[in-house]
Amino acid sequence: MDTTKKTIILFSGDFDKVMAALIIANGAAAMGDDVTIFCTFWGLNILRKTEKPLSGGSGKKSTLQSMFGMMMPKGTKKLGLSKMNFAGMGAPMMRKATRDVGGMSLEELFTSAREQGVKFVACSLSMDILGFTKEELIDDIEFEGVAAYLGEADEANVNLFI
Amino acid sequence: MDTTKKTIILFSGDFDKVMAALIIANGAAAMGDDVTIFCTFWGLNILRKTEKPLSGGSGKKSTLQSMFGMMMPKGTKKLGLSKMNFAGMGAPMMRKATRDVGGMSLEELFTSAREQGVKFVACSLSMDILGFTKEELIDDIEFEGVAAYLGEADEANVNLFI
Amino acid sequence: MDTTKKTIILFSGDFDKVMAALIIANGAAAMGDDVTIFCTFWGLNILRKTEKPLSGGSGKKSTLQSMFGMMMPKGTKKLGLSKMNFAGMGAPMMRKATRDVGGMSLEELFTSAREQGVKFVACSLSMDILGFTKEELIDDIEFEGVAAYLGEADEANVNLFI
Repeated sequence: MDTTKKTIILFSGDFDKVMAALIIANGAAAMGDDVTIFCTFWGLNILRKTEKPLSGGSGKKSTLQSMFGMMMPKGTKKLGLSKMNFAGMGAPMMRKATRDVGGMSLEELFTSAREQGVKFVACSLSMDILGFTKEELIDDIEFEGVAAYLGEADEANVNLFI
Repeated sequence: MDTTKKTIILFSGDFDKVMAALIIANGAAAMGDDVTIFCTFWGLNILRKTEKPLSGGSGKKSTLQSMFGMMMPKGTKKLGLSKMNFAGMGAPMMRKATRDVGGMSLEELFTSAREQGVKFVACSLSMDILGFTKEELIDDIEFEGVAAYLGEADEANVNLFI
Repeated sequence: MDTTKKTIILFSGDFDKVMAALIIANGAAAMGDDVTIFCTFWGLNILRKTEKPLSGGSGKKSTLQSMFGMMMPKGTKKLGLSKMNFAGMGAPMMRKATRDVGGMSLEELFTSAREQGVKFVACSLSMDILGFTKEELIDDIEFEGVAAYLGEADEANVNLFI
């Protein structure tokens, strides 16, 4: 089969939707496809460092941006389910059920996607609005706007919004 | 027009989103297209039998899987709205409003889709995690993973994530 | 680059998802693409006039349809966030954060999309169910069903469900 291109706009920061996105991305990468995940709005959460960076422009944040920064989860470990979240118990339940059947954890899926060459792009407009600096996001990702997304989507044969 | 292929990943188990997915699937099938709906996570709910099967591996379920099984809706009749659910009153309201204008019910849309040859696939990984056995799901569906989805999506000209 | 076609099914009426849809639509239109946004279910909200029309068949509405009409937001200004809505405070917060960084407001994005020729289509089946009349929706939009959507999606190279 020829190499084809896939793009996913990851708008959601829900544990289960991120899991679905990463399973599709890993599967496509394993089949030799080029995969790009554009993280926008709540999807940016998976790219956030869990620790506050030593340097970085967080001092320039507005009060609103500081609030977004505090209230939005940092990294994959803090995400909640989109349904049946049970005051935060849903995601740990889903994690345990996945582990019990030998499935990959969200973190393993994320690492695997990165190792397989899935490209992660942070939406620069969302970053501006929410006040996320490059230093606060993980390394080896790209920063792009909607034009870059559309350029890639034009070359892809599967484009999903999750 | 040539026959083309459409795929829908049905991730959601919300009444209104399932309705949208089935309307699109029925419309495409009526135009002669091949349509596949991959039911994953909450979307698996529409494939669940309303009655507990006489035989089947439910005895092997973990406590967590039993909880998922009890709390997730069985079949299309128990689904709630994604918005304005009003403690469960939203879906019956939407059902009545649809009936009042002579629209097809969710069950009729589902039956029609099946009769028109829309292929329903249950995501095997989601089934494993949630502890759904084949015996607990309706007949005449397929059981596949992400590779099968990607194979079909590569041949399709419209691929949606709902 | 050749002109290509994009379609978006706007199912959601959430402020943040509508914003994402309009950013993509504006970006594609700016690159010379044909863009169609099919507004269905809660997505119809962005097409509703904020004022009750002087004439129009609202007298024929059922009790249920009147309830949907009263409870669903009219136009872009009343939409709430899909996450962190904080009892309605989320969208104003997102609006202010967007304004603070010089981003376009939801209304500006909507106006810009219209001016750039993005085609807005109201799903006629959703209108029937929810009891929205043509007079209650803004001017210069089209009214179509799923067949029209599929016809356009068949010609497009990017089709998203938001």
